[in-house]
Amino acid sequence: MAASPAELKRNSVAQAIADLAELLGDRLTTSQAVRDQHGNDLTWNPGQSPDAVAFVESTEEVAKLVTICSQYRVPVIPYGTGTSLEGHISAPHGGVCVDVSRMNQIIAVNELDLDCVVQPGVTRKALNEYLRDTGLFFPIDPGADASIGGMTATRASGTNAVRYGTMRENVLSLTVVMPNGEIVRTARRARKSAAGYDLTRLMVGSEGTLGVITEVSLRLYGIPEAISAGVCAFPSVEAACEAVIITIQSGIPVARMELVDEHQIRMSNAYSKLSLAEAPTLFLEFHGTTEGVAEQSRLFGEIAESYGGGSFDWATRTEDRNKLWQARHDAFWAAKTAMPGKESVATDVCVPISRLAECVEETRKDMEDHNLSGPIVGHVGDGNFHVVLFCDMEKQDEVDAAKAFLDRLVMRALAMDGTCTGEHGIGSGKRKFLQAEHGAGVQVMRSIKQAIDPENIMNPGKILPS
Amino acid sequence: MAASPAELKRNSVAQAIADLAELLGDRLTTSQAVRDQHGNDLTWNPGQSPDAVAFVESTEEVAKLVTICSQYRVPVIPYGTGTSLEGHISAPHGGVCVDVSRMNQIIAVNELDLDCVVQPGVTRKALNEYLRDTGLFFPIDPGADASIGGMTATRASGTNAVRYGTMRENVLSLTVVMPNGEIVRTARRARKSAAGYDLTRLMVGSEGTLGVITEVSLRLYGIPEAISAGVCAFPSVEAACEAVIITIQSGIPVARMELVDEHQIRMSNAYSKLSLAEAPTLFLEFHGTTEGVAEQSRLFGEIAESYGGGSFDWATRTEDRNKLWQARHDAFWAAKTAMPGKESVATDVCVPISRLAECVEETRKDMEDHNLSGPIVGHVGDGNFHVVLFCDMEKQDEVDAAKAFLDRLVMRALAMDGTCTGEHGIGSGKRKFLQAEHGAGVQVMRSIKQAIDPENIMNPGKILPS
Repeated sequence: MAASPAELKRNSVAQAIADLAELLGDRLTTSQAVRDQHGNDLTWNPGQSPDAVAFVESTEEVAKLVTICSQYRVPVIPYGTGTSLEGHISAPHGGVCVDVSRMNQIIAVNELDLDCVVQPGVTRKALNEYLRDTGLFFPIDPGADASIGGMTATRASGTNAVRYGTMRENVLSLTVVMPNGEIVRTARRARKSAAGYDLTRLMVGSEGTLGVITEVSLRLYGIPEAISAGVCAFPSVEAACEAVIITIQSGIPVARMELVDEHQIRMSNAYSKLSLAEAPTLFLEFHGTTEGVAEQSRLFGEIAESYGGGSFDWATRTEDRNKLWQARHDAFWAAKTAMPGKESVATDVCVPISRLAECVEETRKDMEDHNLSGPIVGHVGDGNFHVVLFCDMEKQDEVDAAKAFLDRLVMRALAMDGTCTGEHGIGSGKRKFLQAEHGAGVQVMRSIKQAIDPENIMNPGKILPS
Repeated sequence: MAASPAELKRNSVAQAIADLAELLGDRLTTSQAVRDQHGNDLTWNPGQSPDAVAFVESTEEVAKLVTICSQYRVPVIPYGTGTSLEGHISAPHGGVCVDVSRMNQIIAVNELDLDCVVQPGVTRKALNEYLRDTGLFFPIDPGADASIGGMTATRASGTNAVRYGTMRENVLSLTVVMPNGEIVRTARRARKSAAGYDLTRLMVGSEGTLGVITEVSLRLYGIPEAISAGVCAFPSVEAACEAVIITIQSGIPVARMELVDEHQIRMSNAYSKLSLAEAPTLFLEFHGTTEGVAEQSRLFGEIAESYGGGSFDWATRTEDRNKLWQARHDAFWAAKTAMPGKESVATDVCVPISRLAECVEETRKDMEDHNLSGPIVGHVGDGNFHVVLFCDMEKQDEVDAAKAFLDRLVMRALAMDGTCTGEHGIGSGKRKFLQAEHGAGVQVMRSIKQAIDPENIMNPGKILPS
């Protein structure tokens, strides 16, 4: 009797694993615990485990691995730190998880060029630790201590994006193992180029669906001579957003500008032992020369005042700044502590900044109307905000209400010419929104995917709707 | 007797033209003079004329035009102002030139969001003229008064790129008519997005080979409160480059930083009636608050001094600044006047900034060794520089020497991890260098082209080597 398709699939996975074991020795594992850990993230997105996990150590090794998987048509799922938020690392069709965490070498720091070349498993904190003595830093800060490879793959951004851009602006070049096992370097180390299609930007944000990133060249920046930070409470979200718009229009090169709503302030006061006024609040940071940050802070203070902002207290001492930003970074844990026994559902959308206040206010009203609660925090200079819902996963009605809310949130952002995700990515969680956002563009994406990965072995089931 | 392939081709072009004439009336022309003007640019790249020129007026009209051309497999060559420099507008396989100059409407200016939406035929000067009263401006300045569509298609940059980025960083979204006639909007108006493949960046720099750009959303910036500009002479190109590197590392947000070599200074002194010292010179501009630009100028002056730079005179009065920058912008004409009766050959390469001095010095020595002369000017903050050769096209030995020099220039830049073009693009003139620069990446580009434009109707003979 002929083998069934499922049997054939199992056979090819088994054969791929046998070949990979020969290549990698005990750096290939099929241990259930390791597989489960690699297929599941911290979110509510249901995770599925891969058939094996490979701890790779070089570009050449990844090329051999992909060639083997391609031969047997076995899925390849790249994995950095597992901190992505939309089910990117799940293995719905099985396959081999490529864990790059041991590819954690900083290959070069070119101080004169303000750039560096790193392996994809280097985390952003490790990179900045390494850079400290050079006077340089890498600004992109998505919150988690994510890997540079993962941040590239998801087009990460975070609090500093308003000043320094996202991974889109800060990746200079990539080395990528393509689905056919070819090694491609997407660009030279020059700051700019007009030579051919922008393969770098095609790979940034492709979420492992077009290849495995094995080397990343990044822009670096001089650590500013002076940094000042501060908080400023406003009578409403709208007033805070208006102050933000005027600040940006004035050309004040603010480095960070975070909106934290009064619900989050209440929880952060309790968790981080602060005594901030329970009002929509902007957390700000200015980078520059000593004179420059003093001027920026003063100018912002004047703008804030004209929109009813409270007195703008600013801190230039490192420990004062750190305390402030620690509270912002702990926002998630503050909320989680306030909602014991619930799963968190973190999501993000991004709209033109002129629509931000309206989008946030409508979203809060929607939450009230549907008896949902959770804080809103936002990278307000980019029009990007997060809602964190807390949900008892055992209660189907709570889960259903959260899902319906997320659908409405995305449709609200799209109706305002925004995007279904500013920085978390599509993964498996937001695939259903891609068509609504991109229309005919989805077919273009599909044809690119088909051209580059005809067998669909690279992280199948992500980004593109089936 | 059956028709020959050439006859069949002529027939299909004739049929396409007949259908297009029905669509466009007298906005389709086959006049030889108009065709020749649209197939030839100002460079030494040999131009070929299209079979017809269509003066389109809307996205929908372009979609119908492309559908007709696709049906008959007739090439489509997009055309803005014809100011590109590598033979982008030539029609080596005939076809229909799509002139977008009548699509010159500014569709929207969103002052609160610091963005605008324009048709592709709007020129950068027309846009800035329109924006003046809003207090906003669009910074990208490739020299020529190019169309926004053309600047997008060639990934243009220019003098302001060191501060504001290139078209890559400043295009938010595009409407594109794809080779199958589908209309695709590549992104929403949100500042950032992590939703799917970056179709915007794929189209930026694709030189009309993947579709016709019919609408462009751009980032805008507040006109700075204060601008100061100045010139500073250095004892050597190396000293000037070192001052540039330290300036950038110090985080001084310089807006323009142009290197002009002593040969160009000599010609500019004569042409623009200036009395600058005949030495490698930096032209600089600072944008910011009044206090900010004063501080930036002072800090730069200190750095320049430590590298032997002459006294840094800076001008904040608009007329003084304009005189200075006019001389920089007139550099080409100054050189052309000094070399009567010769054709100009303008080229560009871009290297990591740490290699810039070396690359410029080696290039000058190469020119001396081969009895070539011409100025070097550069967007030195990006590592990008231009060489303008002047060549008597009647003298084959001069032409051959210039061609051999260009080959060596590109190979020198590539050997320094640079690119064969920082901003002019590949067009037809630099196709032969794509393989040397991108290696296996060329096959990825080719597969994307094949997937999106399987009949190869979009600007054939550009970017990809045959």
